[in-house]
Amino acid sequence: MTTGTIFGVGLGPGDVDLMSVRADRLVRAARHVAFFRKRGRSGQARQIVEGLLAADATEFVMEYPVTTEIPFSDPRYNHLLAEFYAECAAHLLGLALGGEDVVVLCEGDPFFYGSFMHLHARLAPQVAVQVVPGITGMSGAWTAVGQPVTWGDDVLTVLMGTLAEAELSRHAHDTDALVVMKIGQHLRKVMRALERAGKIERAWLVEYATMGGERVRRLVDVTDEETPYFSIIVVPGQGRRP
Amino acid sequence: MTTGTIFGVGLGPGDVDLMSVRADRLVRAARHVAFFRKRGRSGQARQIVEGLLAADATEFVMEYPVTTEIPFSDPRYNHLLAEFYAECAAHLLGLALGGEDVVVLCEGDPFFYGSFMHLHARLAPQVAVQVVPGITGMSGAWTAVGQPVTWGDDVLTVLMGTLAEAELSRHAHDTDALVVMKIGQHLRKVMRALERAGKIERAWLVEYATMGGERVRRLVDVTDEETPYFSIIVVPGQGRRP
Repeated sequence: MTTGTIFGVGLGPGDVDLMSVRADRLVRAARHVAFFRKRGRSGQARQIVEGLLAADATEFVMEYPVTTEIPFSDPRYNHLLAEFYAECAAHLLGLALGGEDVVVLCEGDPFFYGSFMHLHARLAPQVAVQVVPGITGMSGAWTAVGQPVTWGDDVLTVLMGTLAEAELSRHAHDTDALVVMKIGQHLRKVMRALERAGKIERAWLVEYATMGGERVRRLVDVTDEETPYFSIIVVPGQGRRP
Repeated sequence: MTTGTIFGVGLGPGDVDLMSVRADRLVRAARHVAFFRKRGRSGQARQIVEGLLAADATEFVMEYPVTTEIPFSDPRYNHLLAEFYAECAAHLLGLALGGEDVVVLCEGDPFFYGSFMHLHARLAPQVAVQVVPGITGMSGAWTAVGQPVTWGDDVLTVLMGTLAEAELSRHAHDTDALVVMKIGQHLRKVMRALERAGKIERAWLVEYATMGGERVRRLVDVTDEETPYFSIIVVPGQGRRP
């Protein structure tokens, strides 16, 4: 019997038409799919492929034991997630050793701030793992803004909203173009940091890029205290343009 | 008569299977395609879609009047390119006003360091322009390295090899994960900058990611004086991982 392969398949930013041709083919042909989701949610990755899966495909749901209920500085956070990823990886390894290929559904690009990386780290030493890159959520966001994000020699920096305000501000100041992700409850902190960095006037908040409910606003016009999970801030660069 | 639409279509990093489903559909159905290329070359964007175009599709070739022959600090560089982009835009506008849709073939993602942006800036005020995001060349590169590029709260910085050595070094030092593009004849300068920033040991050089001829090496093992146009340096981050 041949050992199966674990495919980490990037599904892109949300619109099913923005999956790659290879991802589309792998998803439609899959006998086994696996995906992460938050408890009580349907899961964004699973939603993207709704209607594409074969009728007899087996679905393995990987529900995070914790997301934002415990701060990730708490040792319990790390422990719970490490245990969770180990269990998920063991299940997928079992399928592969049994000869089955498995398609792990990944939002965006699997190697760009994705949960799949934690499975990859555990599985790649033991079994064949193939990664299919995808269009990132940030590409979806700057396309929604309708402006090129980087020109000429612009420096682009990507920051997580979870960073400390001073770090955010320092990095935002020392770049031409900027993307901020994982904003959620950090919105007002991120806004203060961008204001201090002199970037808030050029910043856009994009919610649900390329999905139903896509919304694009200038960040200075935003009065909300939090943003949905699928929110990205984009500050386009202003570099050389003949 | 209805005015046509100009589509800026991201084709991804090179492998035809990594085009999006939407890009694939638009390219196959196109009556008019346009693409940039360097003089005397076949053009990477055009090569990606080889075999997909309709037999009666009309091709509009946009050949750069200059690429690296004149430094871009020379005023002639800017003048020549501005004239070139204006001529290209005028031709595409004429097609659209004549009722024709046009698919502009773009490597990677159109709004991420792409030439299409210079057409977009000229056309969007005058005619309908739609942009289809694509998988970036850098996603193709870090996938080829086989390591996740960003973990947890890692800061990612994207730099052009055309920047001054001190700028490269400073930005490379002040980030967790790093991508350097447009390397070419700047290779040795970029290597010195990464060495000074303490990042060269973790750096990979990827040539022709996802294309025939893909090659991945540790940057410290590279003895070349220059790299091909399609070369990207990737320094994966080392952030939080349960």
